[in-house]
Amino acid sequence: MLNTYSTSSFIGFDSNYEDSTVVMFGAPFDGTTSFRPGTRFAPAQIRIDSYGLETYSPYLDLDLEDFKISDIGDVDMPFGNTEKALEAIKTTSKAIIGDEKKPLLIGGEHLVSLPVIESLYNAYPDLHIIHFDAHTDLREDYMGEKLSHATVIRRAHDILGDNRIYQFGIRSGTREEFKWSNDHTIMNKFDLSTLESAVKNLSGKPVYLTIDLDVLDPSVFSGTGTPEPGGITMKELLNGINIMKDLNLVGADVVELSPSFDTSGVSTAVACKVIREVSLILAK
Amino acid sequence: MLNTYSTSSFIGFDSNYEDSTVVMFGAPFDGTTSFRPGTRFAPAQIRIDSYGLETYSPYLDLDLEDFKISDIGDVDMPFGNTEKALEAIKTTSKAIIGDEKKPLLIGGEHLVSLPVIESLYNAYPDLHIIHFDAHTDLREDYMGEKLSHATVIRRAHDILGDNRIYQFGIRSGTREEFKWSNDHTIMNKFDLSTLESAVKNLSGKPVYLTIDLDVLDPSVFSGTGTPEPGGITMKELLNGINIMKDLNLVGADVVELSPSFDTSGVSTAVACKVIREVSLILAK
Amino acid sequence: MLNTYSTSSFIGFDSNYEDSTVVMFGAPFDGTTSFRPGTRFAPAQIRIDSYGLETYSPYLDLDLEDFKISDIGDVDMPFGNTEKALEAIKTTSKAIIGDEKKPLLIGGEHLVSLPVIESLYNAYPDLHIIHFDAHTDLREDYMGEKLSHATVIRRAHDILGDNRIYQFGIRSGTREEFKWSNDHTIMNKFDLSTLESAVKNLSGKPVYLTIDLDVLDPSVFSGTGTPEPGGITMKELLNGINIMKDLNLVGADVVELSPSFDTSGVSTAVACKVIREVSLILAK
Amino acid sequence: MLNTYSTSSFIGFDSNYEDSTVVMFGAPFDGTTSFRPGTRFAPAQIRIDSYGLETYSPYLDLDLEDFKISDIGDVDMPFGNTEKALEAIKTTSKAIIGDEKKPLLIGGEHLVSLPVIESLYNAYPDLHIIHFDAHTDLREDYMGEKLSHATVIRRAHDILGDNRIYQFGIRSGTREEFKWSNDHTIMNKFDLSTLESAVKNLSGKPVYLTIDLDVLDPSVFSGTGTPEPGGITMKELLNGINIMKDLNLVGADVVELSPSFDTSGVSTAVACKVIREVSLILAK
Amino acid sequence: MLNTYSTSSFIGFDSNYEDSTVVMFGAPFDGTTSFRPGTRFAPAQIRIDSYGLETYSPYLDLDLEDFKISDIGDVDMPFGNTEKALEAIKTTSKAIIGDEKKPLLIGGEHLVSLPVIESLYNAYPDLHIIHFDAHTDLREDYMGEKLSHATVIRRAHDILGDNRIYQFGIRSGTREEFKWSNDHTIMNKFDLSTLESAVKNLSGKPVYLTIDLDVLDPSVFSGTGTPEPGGITMKELLNGINIMKDLNLVGADVVELSPSFDTSGVSTAVACKVIREVSLILAK
Amino acid sequence: MLNTYSTSSFIGFDSNYEDSTVVMFGAPFDGTTSFRPGTRFAPAQIRIDSYGLETYSPYLDLDLEDFKISDIGDVDMPFGNTEKALEAIKTTSKAIIGDEKKPLLIGGEHLVSLPVIESLYNAYPDLHIIHFDAHTDLREDYMGEKLSHATVIRRAHDILGDNRIYQFGIRSGTREEFKWSNDHTIMNKFDLSTLESAVKNLSGKPVYLTIDLDVLDPSVFSGTGTPEPGGITMKELLNGINIMKDLNLVGADVVELSPSFDTSGVSTAVACKVIREVSLILAK
Repeated sequence: MLNTYSTSSFIGFDSNYEDSTVVMFGAPFDGTTSFRPGTRFAPAQIRIDSYGLETYSPYLDLDLEDFKISDIGDVDMPFGNTEKALEAIKTTSKAIIGDEKKPLLIGGEHLVSLPVIESLYNAYPDLHIIHFDAHTDLREDYMGEKLSHATVIRRAHDILGDNRIYQFGIRSGTREEFKWSNDHTIMNKFDLSTLESAVKNLSGKPVYLTIDLDVLDPSVFSGTGTPEPGGITMKELLNGINIMKDLNLVGADVVELSPSFDTSGVSTAVACKVIREVSLILAK
Repeated sequence: MLNTYSTSSFIGFDSNYEDSTVVMFGAPFDGTTSFRPGTRFAPAQIRIDSYGLETYSPYLDLDLEDFKISDIGDVDMPFGNTEKALEAIKTTSKAIIGDEKKPLLIGGEHLVSLPVIESLYNAYPDLHIIHFDAHTDLREDYMGEKLSHATVIRRAHDILGDNRIYQFGIRSGTREEFKWSNDHTIMNKFDLSTLESAVKNLSGKPVYLTIDLDVLDPSVFSGTGTPEPGGITMKELLNGINIMKDLNLVGADVVELSPSFDTSGVSTAVACKVIREVSLILAK
Repeated sequence: MLNTYSTSSFIGFDSNYEDSTVVMFGAPFDGTTSFRPGTRFAPAQIRIDSYGLETYSPYLDLDLEDFKISDIGDVDMPFGNTEKALEAIKTTSKAIIGDEKKPLLIGGEHLVSLPVIESLYNAYPDLHIIHFDAHTDLREDYMGEKLSHATVIRRAHDILGDNRIYQFGIRSGTREEFKWSNDHTIMNKFDLSTLESAVKNLSGKPVYLTIDLDVLDPSVFSGTGTPEPGGITMKELLNGINIMKDLNLVGADVVELSPSFDTSGVSTAVACKVIREVSLILAK
Repeated sequence: MLNTYSTSSFIGFDSNYEDSTVVMFGAPFDGTTSFRPGTRFAPAQIRIDSYGLETYSPYLDLDLEDFKISDIGDVDMPFGNTEKALEAIKTTSKAIIGDEKKPLLIGGEHLVSLPVIESLYNAYPDLHIIHFDAHTDLREDYMGEKLSHATVIRRAHDILGDNRIYQFGIRSGTREEFKWSNDHTIMNKFDLSTLESAVKNLSGKPVYLTIDLDVLDPSVFSGTGTPEPGGITMKELLNGINIMKDLNLVGADVVELSPSFDTSGVSTAVACKVIREVSLILAK
Repeated sequence: MLNTYSTSSFIGFDSNYEDSTVVMFGAPFDGTTSFRPGTRFAPAQIRIDSYGLETYSPYLDLDLEDFKISDIGDVDMPFGNTEKALEAIKTTSKAIIGDEKKPLLIGGEHLVSLPVIESLYNAYPDLHIIHFDAHTDLREDYMGEKLSHATVIRRAHDILGDNRIYQFGIRSGTREEFKWSNDHTIMNKFDLSTLESAVKNLSGKPVYLTIDLDVLDPSVFSGTGTPEPGGITMKELLNGINIMKDLNLVGADVVELSPSFDTSGVSTAVACKVIREVSLILAK
Repeated sequence: MLNTYSTSSFIGFDSNYEDSTVVMFGAPFDGTTSFRPGTRFAPAQIRIDSYGLETYSPYLDLDLEDFKISDIGDVDMPFGNTEKALEAIKTTSKAIIGDEKKPLLIGGEHLVSLPVIESLYNAYPDLHIIHFDAHTDLREDYMGEKLSHATVIRRAHDILGDNRIYQFGIRSGTREEFKWSNDHTIMNKFDLSTLESAVKNLSGKPVYLTIDLDVLDPSVFSGTGTPEPGGITMKELLNGINIMKDLNLVGADVVELSPSFDTSGVSTAVACKVIREVSLILAK
């Protein structure tokens, strides 16, 4: 037969779905229909550029080759309909969780995290969230819209309730959002300085990790829609992932890469490296 | 008093509203709320970069200084609500037409043309349209949505009826759109070769000119959301404007510049030059 | 089951291999091992960006949906070994031809054309070639190397012999190459002006079409390794493909897109559109 | 009436001139007449892009909405004549100071600071300066020219005398400039490490803050004429502004953004955020 | 001895000064002192990138290897003083002309042509000029300055008088400049359509050719300070050079490449190819 | 005579070869023959852009003007043949060392370091190496090739043996490479934290310093083939050079700038500044 192949798998994610303990899938959703491709094309670009990565992490001293991880492609979602798109993601994440595997979601915009959080909450009622982001994402609604990238963590709070969400690196939002967080989430503004103690608090509890890559400073990650200067460095992020390596992680996502704005390719290289590290602490 | 000023007027559009015969206004609408600035910021960028332009056109042997043109800024439109945004544009264009002046609209996305066409149709029931574009824009709906940049000319047809719309430079669309155009519009695919005869047919009739700048080849105009190779050259467009100089133009628009994608500044320079030429044939 | 998918097929190339009359495959080869991704990643990028394309061609009045075309992915080629890479391409192309289908190859650098030409020559001893390029590609060797992107048409001549190769758009090479072509190939420098008469000469004969996209002017196609100003326009190329629509084409390739140098995305959009048009004249 | 507006005000600077305590104005001067727009267009670009900013600062826990700040546009300055340009800036700054308001100047090149310093010195004979920059700006003349962006702090010293100017982040200059500074200014090379103690020394004294944005490392601020690697991070700058929040600031400027070199938009986002923070510590 | 070399010669310009008939030299002058490098660095960049060029021209069927051309480097000019800079260029060009060789000047901004024209006028009192440009360059002064890139052709007219200057491709200027040209120069607006007849008129007369590369459309030549859409194509320029091949050319220049704005490298490739073609028609 | 010059020397490297104690030379080698210019053109670009640099270093309080440094241009190396290219570099470095001068090599890719190390080892059998890099470069072979940028430090180990090579900033490689380094080199992963103690150990010993600029984070140095996020900052690198200022350095190199990927010019500015600092600690 013909010996051809497709580059549709992330490097080192070579296992069959059945054998795998961690399952990566993409949610190419950005809620805009008429613009030059945005975060919608991140999963495809990440898979291509992942071939510039080594499978070994000197940070964790772990190698992708030692774990069972699969990449099942992207969710086939109805274009231009937010609710159906979220439904499609939920169906996939429920199936993965039902098969006792851990979901690793690649966005797409931040809203795609919501259905995965819902699915995990059903399986783990004591679910907590660690949230890395430049923005609070805590609005009650955005221009009247309840389901938005700017409200996603507020919607997660609707599900989980108070003091289940730990936010890190936050440096932009309205005064109201920051005030609201005082009573409802545990927020570490600007950096990751309290991550170590948060990890201690969360010991043994089921945790979902959601990384909006714009938590990074635009100097290292310019490939995103709304650059917010004053973010953390790549080293701080890599160190943060290392700190979380003994958590009971039950799922994770990496969102908001917008390849069109990544003219140098550096932002996609950043995304690939973060995905490798996150998949390793999920799998171990 | 303080001798400061703002750069919010296009070069040479120095008249008061009251004195002017042509009135430029911006419609910074792109229907997307969460993305890096798109066509929404075109009017502001065009005003800034217009200062690289001479006021004299050697193509038409006319000078902006000899005409009464005003730039009244941008329509203040409710963010995130398409219908109210179109309503706001309509209010402005009706007022301009009511004052017996000619509207010159700067987009934003192509949908902004629609309320100006409606307003002009009320004043000129025999209105015709000349439409320059890469795309047919003739869908009945786009993802179920009737008001879209991809349906705008179909909506214009709803108002004007058959054989009132002359389309030029069209090179992309579904098979259905091209078929539909056979019975309902007068389409010149790929270039402007029949423009001269169209101008003859339209002699004396009230004509609205709508220029989607992506009618140009991406080699000269890359600053747009969906590059469609195989377009006309800048010279062909300038020549086309010259051909229309004796038409009874009652209004015009220039749309779809997206400054974020114009890293070299060339696309904005193109938009400025097209606006100068169009304003001159409107004003004379 | 999980309803996921991969974006690894070109838009509209939805048939099974068994049903298809035209088979697209990629040859992600660029003979360099240590550099930022070059033409090697063109097939993957082309598949992603093809989703910005309509399936209908107004140039040919044909629609991809009416034809049986498959996209079987990329040849799995041994990295870093030119001869084995060419062998792998040859195996694939022989299988396709053996199944009485037409190969449509996506490069990769121009050298990838050679094994397809060899395979087709075995099936069609009267094979002729139409070659679009900025460069002669007629060197006997390049830095002592016989198998190179700069020698590929000379190697094709080794197989086919004199006056079987029609070259168009050529504008760069050594004096020796241009002289050599006088006796051995039929060369149309700078443009496509003699294409129509060439097509008449070739009527009924089996023809392979190889398009090095740098035949286009760098104004419209800058995404390539060696920009050579003075090329043809996109309209000239589209018109050229139209002229060839009644040839007995038995295979084709489109090569030398280098996505890393295509910061605006325009070059990839050009490649996608050329592939759509070529696949339609192959399939009809 | 027509409900249009201009985008010529910085976000949140909505007060009337009469009511305001802080007055922002632009000085679009770059002393070059024949080149693609440089720092001259920074004020206009900053106003446009400021709409991507929140009005609330989580760094200072202050909101622009709680202060009276106006944006009076740009100084109308005679093109191509340095002395008249500086005179025009001086006239504006004297009027603002005379009305007991604080000037906030947006450059243009660094030379625009000089007339504001002169005006403030007349009102506050004990004026001191805090100067953030990559370059010493201490030359006696530059190519024979006494008024230059490379001499501006030396000219400020002509007015204020010894030990009134505190320089931070300096990392480039001639050996003579560094030597001269030993006896005449208080220089903190490379970073802001002595800022806290300087603020103590300056307690109660009238202070002018001048920020040449190239004090930042080019990794976060590449949109400037002469990138000088080894600068401070955005976090260090934001922290530095916070340290100065209880100073008796009587005026400030932010200079040297060159939008043409800011292809990613990140540098303009940096400038906007710095202006928000500086305006808040000026106004409180 | 050490077998090192410098890349400071244009490809194929390998002759000694003494042996050569054509002498290339650079004038890295752009009259701005404080900005990111502009046209000042064009000669150096052109020499580097010339190594991507073949020495053979298929347009002229001539090869650089058959002619005696030298590249003597750049004029060592006093920085920041326009008059002395022009004096330095004049000294060099006079020496070359005195040695009965033809000068080929590489800019720098257009003003650098003036001293070469003066030198040639002294040697050839019947000197004529062929001028390719987007701009008239005919102002009496620019912001009060008589020596400027915007006045250079007016200054050349001061020397040569009426009807000695043939202008081609002109598409931008004030109304006054265009009017003035009616009585004093021979202007072909927009394109090269009358070049053939001009060449006939100039048969046998000594002619200087000055090419401001912005005569090209920005689609192919974006690497310049003031992009002016609507220019000629590369093919038109190459054809124009071919038309002039039998003129009695006594010198030439190629000016206004600004490498900082040439992010793709295409503009520099254009400049190199134009220089090759011009040097060949000068040398033959 | 004609007062022209070439810009082929690095700023401040003005001495004759005979007088100099440090000799800079370029090795424009990148082992690829068919691609858009890579590291091969770094030496030429570095020389041009060095003119944006001051000769005085405030970090070291030293000025290039006080030292005897020459720039002898680039090694003239046979294109397309790795072994001969290395031979040519070796000949040059041997001559420099034989004349009791210190070689300062500018790459080109990292492999160019090898012949300089061999030459120095012959002169200094106790030679040690300090190696700054993102990558281990310790493979036994790369795709079967023993001489490669990915094996260069392994080849250096073949010469020097165990525990002579100190590696810093390393963050990418295979698990095997990292394991191998445990027994054979002294590796400081991720940063320079042990540099100070290494310098103490190396006191008095002859040391070669090899800096692969990709040791820097891509935020400050994106102009390289394989961006590896998580690197050191420019300040850390400058501080590291300062720490080494009393070592017995006998030679050094700075490699892997790829100007084609440096669209902002920042990476080349970084390279120039590093070369100034390294040359000063070599010369003092």
